[in-house]
Amino acid sequence: MGEVIGMTDLDTLPEILLMGPGPSAVPPQIYHALSRPTLGHLDPVFLTIMDEIKENLGTIYKAPAGSLTIPLSGTGSSGMEAAFANLVEPGDKVLVLINGVFGMRMQDVATRLRAEVDTLEFEWGTPVIPAEVKKKLANSNYDIVAVVHAETSTGVANPVAEISALLDELPERPLYLVDCVTSFGGMEVDLKKWQVDAAYSGTQKCLSCPPGLSPFALSPKAVQRLKNRKTKVPNWYLDVTMLVNYWEAGGGGARVYHHTAPINMLYGLHTALRLVLEEGLEKTFARHREAHSQLVSGLAGIGLEMFVDESCRLPMLNSVKVPDGVDEAKVRKSLREEFQIEIGPGLGPLAGKIWRIGLMGYTARPENVERVLSALQKSIEKA
Amino acid sequence: MGEVIGMTDLDTLPEILLMGPGPSAVPPQIYHALSRPTLGHLDPVFLTIMDEIKENLGTIYKAPAGSLTIPLSGTGSSGMEAAFANLVEPGDKVLVLINGVFGMRMQDVATRLRAEVDTLEFEWGTPVIPAEVKKKLANSNYDIVAVVHAETSTGVANPVAEISALLDELPERPLYLVDCVTSFGGMEVDLKKWQVDAAYSGTQKCLSCPPGLSPFALSPKAVQRLKNRKTKVPNWYLDVTMLVNYWEAGGGGARVYHHTAPINMLYGLHTALRLVLEEGLEKTFARHREAHSQLVSGLAGIGLEMFVDESCRLPMLNSVKVPDGVDEAKVRKSLREEFQIEIGPGLGPLAGKIWRIGLMGYTARPENVERVLSALQKSIEKA
Repeated sequence: MGEVIGMTDLDTLPEILLMGPGPSAVPPQIYHALSRPTLGHLDPVFLTIMDEIKENLGTIYKAPAGSLTIPLSGTGSSGMEAAFANLVEPGDKVLVLINGVFGMRMQDVATRLRAEVDTLEFEWGTPVIPAEVKKKLANSNYDIVAVVHAETSTGVANPVAEISALLDELPERPLYLVDCVTSFGGMEVDLKKWQVDAAYSGTQKCLSCPPGLSPFALSPKAVQRLKNRKTKVPNWYLDVTMLVNYWEAGGGGARVYHHTAPINMLYGLHTALRLVLEEGLEKTFARHREAHSQLVSGLAGIGLEMFVDESCRLPMLNSVKVPDGVDEAKVRKSLREEFQIEIGPGLGPLAGKIWRIGLMGYTARPENVERVLSALQKSIEKA
Repeated sequence: MGEVIGMTDLDTLPEILLMGPGPSAVPPQIYHALSRPTLGHLDPVFLTIMDEIKENLGTIYKAPAGSLTIPLSGTGSSGMEAAFANLVEPGDKVLVLINGVFGMRMQDVATRLRAEVDTLEFEWGTPVIPAEVKKKLANSNYDIVAVVHAETSTGVANPVAEISALLDELPERPLYLVDCVTSFGGMEVDLKKWQVDAAYSGTQKCLSCPPGLSPFALSPKAVQRLKNRKTKVPNWYLDVTMLVNYWEAGGGGARVYHHTAPINMLYGLHTALRLVLEEGLEKTFARHREAHSQLVSGLAGIGLEMFVDESCRLPMLNSVKVPDGVDEAKVRKSLREEFQIEIGPGLGPLAGKIWRIGLMGYTARPENVERVLSALQKSIEKA
């Protein structure tokens, strides 16, 4: 009856160790959670699960009281879209600090939303330099300053605390928008201490959940800004003024349907947040740092160099220089086909020049580091 | 170490028979698919799965050659957002035909995107009347005409073929945008025959997959319109001009990363499409009609009336009048708590007046109809 084209049997999928820039390895508890019985999006038991997710997102974000912490029904990039779409009004002045793909993406997103976008660019593989930012800030009164905490395309950690301190020196503090896609759950993120007004992440990085949701946060100040908008948010799907009526009981105590929440993905996120909090934030972050140290010394042992200076290296995203004369794609192919390991290539100007090795969440374990080091050595020898 | 607030144990979730307006009951094969090993979003095996999804979406949509059929990384509402965001340029004239919540949502979405939106409204619970549309079309030259095929808020099927025929009579045929959220996979949807230019659905209706993705389609004409845009799509996340470079190999034969696709949800959709095609479209649709007939006669047998006239009733969404003097919420609460069945309430002006009983996908089976009829009778007697 049906015309079914040759279909891949999902029971024969290979088990690949995910050591690229995300998705990361998924623990069995999360796979299990994804397949729990679907409930209605207004079911009382599901509403409790939603409340627990909000609470735990706030804890991991270290969000101040009065913040809004909810998962958005899209991947990490939908978080970026939502942060700008909700906070930018046409003509608003936005400064984007750029040192990689995701800073560039911010510029594109904000421009489409009719912000007046100014940028300050730094060499890829190096961090944003606060002294340069300070000079730039003196020139204009920005409504929003935006930066990527952990630049997934290069492996650089940007000095988000230092940038925040610069904003305090201005006559009026702009909204501070920080991309936490790759940092959230794997290193310190402290929205309160850094006075961050809008942050977002993805589930497929240090939370080790499959991709599909974006943990999102707005400060009380951002929530107020949103309430005072002169124009409607130009994106119905990601309009936080409406999402909040579903995620939080309104005046009448009832939740208002906006769109049907991705129930089973939210089970996965619920479990991921529990696993991080059960391990404890400090222990989780230490595990990421230890896996990183192990990787860095192992790489040195096989003659490979890191791309990023030690002073600003991310623990969970490690950029490694491709040795001269080595075909980087051939090495990745060998890793994938002979060793069942995925690592990432360089993007844009770094294509062909670096590999990106992810140590995110469940991936950040000593046995995985051993495995990738051994496989990498063998694959390079053959390439 | 961690501060974990009281967390719901997902292993104790109740098994609720989902007979509301969506999500629908999920078959075991799809739960299983969701928990298969996560692959990278550029893994060769995953790329094959993506191709199969595109192909099978095209088959179920009956999309003409040259169409684009891809799942979007958001729920059904993201499909609506994407359809308008990609096809509307500021000042474009859009006619929205409204006879329920989702027509109203279209108006809101298109207005935020700076379309010049005109509407034609019909009483909720009745269909769009082609003769009225014809008069309206004579007044203006619209760029886009939009209608909801299966209005989930009322249970009405709109005459999408007749409306399409009216568009052919115009000097220049506008783009025809049809919301197929609740119809796709449960009744005939024929994008080719109806000359539909943009369509979208959700996974949690007749595909019986958990919510989280939107099966989306553009006709060759819509793809061309998109390519000829004067302005960038004002939504980076849902910009189909970029998504297509990930979903289809470009000139160089390589896929370009846009955002990390929701891998495991796509396993679920892949399985859902296979199940529909294995059963066969005609058989699937017949099963929905049969469950509907069984429900309608059963409801009559217990003295309940349908809200929508027989001539335009949807098979998969059944609006039932709440008898005078019955507290509709109390009945739903009894169904949920004593019989583990979810049905939906009325929305907006229909709140308190109707129940909405879904017979979508895996829910549309005789035993479920029996179960809801028996439980409904008992719950009403007690209420």
